[in-house]
Amino acid sequence: MTTHSTARTRVRRIPTNAAYDTATLHAIIDDAYVCHIAFSDDGGPHCIPTACWREGDHLYIHGSNGSRMLKRLTEDECCVTITHVDGLVLARSAFNHSMNYRSAMVYGRFEVVEGEAKKASMEAFMEKLAAGRQAEVRGGSDKEYAATTVMRIPLAEAACKVRKGGPEDDAEDMAIEVWTGVLPLRRAQAAPIAAEGNTLPQPAYVQAWQHNTIY
Amino acid sequence: MTTHSTARTRVRRIPTNAAYDTATLHAIIDDAYVCHIAFSDDGGPHCIPTACWREGDHLYIHGSNGSRMLKRLTEDECCVTITHVDGLVLARSAFNHSMNYRSAMVYGRFEVVEGEAKKASMEAFMEKLAAGRQAEVRGGSDKEYAATTVMRIPLAEAACKVRKGGPEDDAEDMAIEVWTGVLPLRRAQAAPIAAEGNTLPQPAYVQAWQHNTIY
Repeated sequence: MTTHSTARTRVRRIPTNAAYDTATLHAIIDDAYVCHIAFSDDGGPHCIPTACWREGDHLYIHGSNGSRMLKRLTEDECCVTITHVDGLVLARSAFNHSMNYRSAMVYGRFEVVEGEAKKASMEAFMEKLAAGRQAEVRGGSDKEYAATTVMRIPLAEAACKVRKGGPEDDAEDMAIEVWTGVLPLRRAQAAPIAAEGNTLPQPAYVQAWQHNTIY
Repeated sequence: MTTHSTARTRVRRIPTNAAYDTATLHAIIDDAYVCHIAFSDDGGPHCIPTACWREGDHLYIHGSNGSRMLKRLTEDECCVTITHVDGLVLARSAFNHSMNYRSAMVYGRFEVVEGEAKKASMEAFMEKLAAGRQAEVRGGSDKEYAATTVMRIPLAEAACKVRKGGPEDDAEDMAIEVWTGVLPLRRAQAAPIAAEGNTLPQPAYVQAWQHNTIY
């Protein structure tokens, strides 16, 4: 399955790194805790980071009802971008240095999620953060839900760009004697830190966190 | 020293997490390999990730002369944002869950960097990626420099937002018996991968990379 390619999502710079398949798009979103959203208002363009998660073919965000971004996002088009930096690529010439990365861009308009769907999507967000925790904590009250807006954008008009692998040197530089390769970057899970005074046993997902130091 | 607070940079959501001091701003930028830039054109708002570095009171980017973003950035205002996610914050109630993060937003307009300053800034970028490597590789040719645009934006109109520490539970939730605390996230440096066929010894900065597994 592929996303819908438009003038906005056709990758022009290094198009050989472009990917339009749904599997790549979903994997990049699912690996992210935060996206950046570009939108404009009377103050010009803004680029705001916010937590995100995916259900099916939509990307979800949430926030306080009072958020100026959330208000604005129902009124106009925006662009949602996620980027993972996977490594520094060291080549024989300065200008052939690069970075390995996975990025996804989604264009479109957010819609507000209401009622039971709103509750289900917030629970899906918790499941992403800590699988099984929803049943252990106090669930949202009517007042908390009423003060919170949940929104989603379809993953219909989207494009990914991925660079991986080693440096690509020019043929005439191959005699230059310098180490070349990749310095990989990963997201690591460091040891959990219990809240002050909380001596309860760690649930399975907390124990698993410290055993997954690098992924 | 503090940045200039304007209607655009005054933090409205959870203003107690706001920071306007230069040291915080510089540290967030210096810890980043990539920023996201929001700008608008006839196609609406775009959010583009690009490599960044800092010299003094400016944030720098570079790219091909043909980049539609670079062309557009000299013509209008934009917003540059950097976000580091430092951990998941697990609380006693679903709605008090949070994330620890450090983010920086810069508003303004980019200017093109030319001549010797252009060369010096590209070398500063290499120094950030791999200190000392510039002297070991083939430097940029006149043709390569001519095909590349370097731009900078002043760090004058900027704001940071930082959340750290454990969960903040409501007083009425304190009797709920569930593990609470922080699941920390870090950027890790995994073992360097030499390019195929390259058996040269690792320079000091490559050796140091694998010894700095988590920072």
